[in-house]
Amino acid sequence: MSGPGPAKDAWLKTIPDGDTHERLVCPDCGYVEYDNPKIVVGAVCTWEERILLCRRAINPRKGFWVFPAGYLELHETTAAGACREAREEAGVEIEIDHLLAVYTIPRLSQVQLIYRARLPSADLNPGPETLEAELFRWDDIPWDDLAFPTVRWALTHHNELRGQSDFPPRGNPPGESADYLKKR
Amino acid sequence: MSGPGPAKDAWLKTIPDGDTHERLVCPDCGYVEYDNPKIVVGAVCTWEERILLCRRAINPRKGFWVFPAGYLELHETTAAGACREAREEAGVEIEIDHLLAVYTIPRLSQVQLIYRARLPSADLNPGPETLEAELFRWDDIPWDDLAFPTVRWALTHHNELRGQSDFPPRGNPPGESADYLKKR
Repeated sequence: MSGPGPAKDAWLKTIPDGDTHERLVCPDCGYVEYDNPKIVVGAVCTWEERILLCRRAINPRKGFWVFPAGYLELHETTAAGACREAREEAGVEIEIDHLLAVYTIPRLSQVQLIYRARLPSADLNPGPETLEAELFRWDDIPWDDLAFPTVRWALTHHNELRGQSDFPPRGNPPGESADYLKKR
Repeated sequence: MSGPGPAKDAWLKTIPDGDTHERLVCPDCGYVEYDNPKIVVGAVCTWEERILLCRRAINPRKGFWVFPAGYLELHETTAAGACREAREEAGVEIEIDHLLAVYTIPRLSQVQLIYRARLPSADLNPGPETLEAELFRWDDIPWDDLAFPTVRWALTHHNELRGQSDFPPRGNPPGESADYLKKR
C-alpha cells in the first residue's frame, strides 16, 4: 500500500509518456510510483585476524549470523552507511580500508557494497538488532548458520584477499543466485 | 505527493517503533514511507580510443553531454542496467570491461556505478532521450558542456586508467561536491 487512496491492486500498470517501463499509476490522481532497487552497505570487520559477526535479533533470518550491514539512508555516503551499521549493530567505530565487493541481486532488486574494515579494539557493544556479537577465527565461523548467501560470499572473498590491497572489488560468485532458501 | 490521501506536509515526521530514523507517516492510515537512495548505472564506452557522448534531449541539463547512464530498474543487475542505458540512449550494444568508478553523492541520495566498456563498432543510433551521439577524441571532449560533474569525474578517471586492468574503482575526487550549479 502507499497511502489511504485506492488499494494498490486497483492501480493501473502502464507506461507513462516518455518512459520505457511499466509503472503503477494511481487511477484517482495519476501519481506515478517509481519503485527503485535498494542499496545495502556493510563491512567485514576484523580485530587481529578475527572477524566480527552479529547474531540477528530481528527477521528476516533472526538468530543467524551476519557482518554489520543494512540499507543505505537518504543523504548518506556509502562508507558512512557502513560505519553507521557497525555502530548500530555491534557498537563499534570501524575504520574502512577498501571496497571488498559489489554484489548485485536482481531477484531482490538489491545492490550490496561491502567494505573491508578494521576494529580499533575487541570491545563490542551490540545494539537492539543484535542478540550477540562475537569475533571469530576463520575456522570457527558458523558457516551453517550464516543469515544470507552474501555473508558467505563476502567472508570468502575477504579471506581470498587477505594481505592484498589495490584490488578490484569482487562480484557475485559465478552461478550463485543468492537464494538462501535453496540448498547450497 | 504519494497518492490522493492527506497532503505530504500533513504527514507526521516520527521514528517508528524499532526504527532508528525519522520517517514520514500518514496520519490517516499509519503508512510509513521508506524513501531510499537511488542507484545510477552507466558506462564510459570507447571505439578506437574515441569516447561515446550523448547530448541530452531531456531535462535536467537538456542540451548537455553525458555518457550513457540512468537509474537502475527493479530486478536488473547493475551491468545489465548499464548496457540497457547505452542501448536506449545511443542504440549500441556495449561490452563491459571493468568497474571504473563508484561515486556517492549524499546531497542527491545517489550512488553511481560507472563501468568501462567497448563499442563493437562506430555505428550509433540515438534514441528519443538523445539529441545527438558522437565519438570524441580526448582533446575534443566538450568539457564546458558536460551535463554533470560526475561525467567529468568519470572521463578523467577513464583517462587515468587507460591501458590498466585489475584496478580498484575510483571514488569521488577529494573535495568535490558534485554540484553542477557551483562554479568549477
